[in-house]
Amino acid sequence: MDRERMVKKQITRIRQGEREDLDDLVTIETPVTIYLNGNELVTLLCTPEKLDFLALGFLRSEGIITGINDLELIRVKEKEGLVEVDLKKETGLSEKLYGKRTVTSGCGKGTVFFNVLDSLRSSPLSGDLTISAEKVTGLMDSLQQRAELYKATGGVHSAALADRERIIYFSEDIGRHNAIDKIIGECLMDGIPTEDKIIVSSGRLSSEILLKTAKLKIQMLISRAAPTSLCIELAENLNITLAGFVRGKRINLYTHQWRITNS
Amino acid sequence: MDRERMVKKQITRIRQGEREDLDDLVTIETPVTIYLNGNELVTLLCTPEKLDFLALGFLRSEGIITGINDLELIRVKEKEGLVEVDLKKETGLSEKLYGKRTVTSGCGKGTVFFNVLDSLRSSPLSGDLTISAEKVTGLMDSLQQRAELYKATGGVHSAALADRERIIYFSEDIGRHNAIDKIIGECLMDGIPTEDKIIVSSGRLSSEILLKTAKLKIQMLISRAAPTSLCIELAENLNITLAGFVRGKRINLYTHQWRITNS
Repeated sequence: MDRERMVKKQITRIRQGEREDLDDLVTIETPVTIYLNGNELVTLLCTPEKLDFLALGFLRSEGIITGINDLELIRVKEKEGLVEVDLKKETGLSEKLYGKRTVTSGCGKGTVFFNVLDSLRSSPLSGDLTISAEKVTGLMDSLQQRAELYKATGGVHSAALADRERIIYFSEDIGRHNAIDKIIGECLMDGIPTEDKIIVSSGRLSSEILLKTAKLKIQMLISRAAPTSLCIELAENLNITLAGFVRGKRINLYTHQWRITNS
Repeated sequence: MDRERMVKKQITRIRQGEREDLDDLVTIETPVTIYLNGNELVTLLCTPEKLDFLALGFLRSEGIITGINDLELIRVKEKEGLVEVDLKKETGLSEKLYGKRTVTSGCGKGTVFFNVLDSLRSSPLSGDLTISAEKVTGLMDSLQQRAELYKATGGVHSAALADRERIIYFSEDIGRHNAIDKIIGECLMDGIPTEDKIIVSSGRLSSEILLKTAKLKIQMLISRAAPTSLCIELAENLNITLAGFVRGKRINLYTHQWRITNS
């Protein structure tokens, strides 16, 4: 059993009025605090794996770093539930964030969100990536096949970065946002280009998910679930393709549908 | 059509390689900012209805207010996307929060979370509410029947406050946390006792959901989805009954199972 991610619990199952005691696997939730330059920045409730990627992705999504080169050091202290990140120098933005303690856009809380929204609205992506519908549904099949923690516990979201052929990075987390941030962090760590990649997700597509990935110039989001109105509006303006309800051989296309071809 | 909650969008559906243009309903996501005593406190991304309940519930969950009596005024400005709340007097806690701008535990971010965690760990609930398994599955059926926005858009969570017989308050929101906060806010507004009530939810049971409802001394959480390890641990310590994966006639009981009886 994967000790970092799930734990055995004794439960009672009632089925048609019959009670039965059995062991069941439950997904682990744990608080992890990110320290930036020695100061406590934020505490995330998450699945305790890939914590370096989670911290990196979170900092990138918040606009505190632009890449791995901004870092002096990153150190995961798993037992203590913390990740220490030191920046080479404080950027203007990270100082501003410190001053306001508004480190909250991961869940759409805080004014940072609106600045990002405004800045992004004015700069649509220019990429011309295309992929066939068949490959889109194939990527979703791959995501589901790899979702082992979900299959065992039913309690997590999964996310992946893919190219047109296959999944490159995969993560699972109790949080929809964390799963995406872990993927983003892994991209940064490896320094791979993201402009030509695709995000595949099990979770709903909200404005925050879109803004996270738009910062990496990702042109296409594919999800098993529904998008929100604000996500669609932003995707329309930013020239990003949104595909939702990707289930079996079905795809709903909400924006810039030319990127997904029939064959 | 419910203009506040959903909007019609033209989409393209691909099914078995065939493209078809059609109208689809999408759930509305909108930013709503809460101002406390004239200061911007937080921006929530939410379904724009019951915003007064959302603000009240959020403030209660964060520990900024204990009840409606703490309020001088609450005013929703729907077009501007804001809710103004003035307190009668600033409590010690709300001042502390201001100073730190750590208003984030709705998504488990911020140090406030740990204080709450610590304080709750030491005070288990004492209630002896019981309910039959049949009524539990009946409450879940009611929740699903009322989930109209979910049925139309597939993009929201639902939550309800119930007694042993029926649902009393019901809400839907793009955010799992918001849906619960709206219910909590409605309880506060009406001033009904919550100690003998049950929370019914479509979403996963994480530590934050448990902590929100434990503050209202709610003894039982029922969900269609999975609980996390931390939620189970807290429920065990706080003497709260957790029922997950309530689907059809099946119930998984994780803690204090004596509250759910066979008949």
